[in-house]
Amino acid sequence: MYKYAVIVAGGMGTRMGSALPKQFLPVHQKPILWYTLNSFVKSFRDIRIILVLPSEYLDAGRSVAEEFHSGHLLEIIQGGHTRFHSVQAGLSLVHEESVVFIHDAVRCFLQPSLIHHCYEEARVHGSAIPCVEPQDSIRILEGDGSRSVKRTGVRLVQTPQTFLSRIILPAYQQDFRDEFTDDASVAEASGNRIHLVEGDPGNIKVTTPVDLSLAAELLTPPHTS
Amino acid sequence: MYKYAVIVAGGMGTRMGSALPKQFLPVHQKPILWYTLNSFVKSFRDIRIILVLPSEYLDAGRSVAEEFHSGHLLEIIQGGHTRFHSVQAGLSLVHEESVVFIHDAVRCFLQPSLIHHCYEEARVHGSAIPCVEPQDSIRILEGDGSRSVKRTGVRLVQTPQTFLSRIILPAYQQDFRDEFTDDASVAEASGNRIHLVEGDPGNIKVTTPVDLSLAAELLTPPHTS
Repeated sequence: MYKYAVIVAGGMGTRMGSALPKQFLPVHQKPILWYTLNSFVKSFRDIRIILVLPSEYLDAGRSVAEEFHSGHLLEIIQGGHTRFHSVQAGLSLVHEESVVFIHDAVRCFLQPSLIHHCYEEARVHGSAIPCVEPQDSIRILEGDGSRSVKRTGVRLVQTPQTFLSRIILPAYQQDFRDEFTDDASVAEASGNRIHLVEGDPGNIKVTTPVDLSLAAELLTPPHTS
Repeated sequence: MYKYAVIVAGGMGTRMGSALPKQFLPVHQKPILWYTLNSFVKSFRDIRIILVLPSEYLDAGRSVAEEFHSGHLLEIIQGGHTRFHSVQAGLSLVHEESVVFIHDAVRCFLQPSLIHHCYEEARVHGSAIPCVEPQDSIRILEGDGSRSVKRTGVRLVQTPQTFLSRIILPAYQQDFRDEFTDDASVAEASGNRIHLVEGDPGNIKVTTPVDLSLAAELLTPPHTS
């Protein structure tokens, strides 16, 4: 079956205190985005990658993409105002009956084993949403207070959120709603039941300088060509 | 006002695939626990530390504690079967009207600035519970399915959970209940309103080998004596 990875790199995140969007911050002379793309390139020989970027970073994205000249089809498209609209733009390039991975560009620690697991589960169940149990206690804000909930009943949702194209393409034809927090919630809103799978505690978003230190420690420097 | 830090190191956590409990795993020749203790020792000249350990690690704890001979009062006591019972044991050594910090031994990235912030807020509000907004989408498990909740309405609860002694000592006189997930929920169950404060995204628990790599990267090796 065809495989598409829609890599969403819309955010201009400023929490790093850096002018560059997080996905372009360098680790061992390669941007975070390079490592994310590399995980997908390594996962399947025939995967097609659709990279969604803010307009002002299309050129930067092209120069990262140029390093992957191993026959993988890699397309770049401009994102929208929200993550929903960016994913919608990316999905407009999916033309085959396929398994579609939708992934945050800043989750650069993604392992090919999790990609394969999501692929297998989505083929059987229509979707595969990786998630992990939180390490911390959880509170839900309510009014001007909050209440405790048991963490064993809570899941932190990761990406790649993985779907059969015949489920996710129609789902993204809906109008945007504020409660669409991720792709799973979009799929549910169009009447699909989603399937949770065990994620990887290491598959975090790089969002703070602490995470960037971790990236420097964990990501293997690529061979220079 | 007096200050007590109850450091709870009851867990025998096996997720590391290691025989040693996580708080004794070494980073730059010092156990994780050393860094946690050091954060409190640095935070206030007059802080008293109560270290709660499983019975088979009391000796190991003593040898870590011996390195802090700077006039800080540090006591060690055996923990109980659950975190609740371990905290209860630790609180039995608090004899002064004070501000009490209750902290997970494996949160070794704790900054003295967060300790100070919790102290000030607890003095005013009776409690200070540090928490952060999750980076991931959140699902609540329900029946054999799950539902999405907006992450802006969710908080991940950290430690040090900080209280005036006159609030937390009576709260821990209650009988244990299964829904006591942390100290804040214990305080609430005895009729107190708790006060949330902004935590630190870097103040994570060391629970996986990935976290241990991070520790090696971020923790400063101590000067050898």
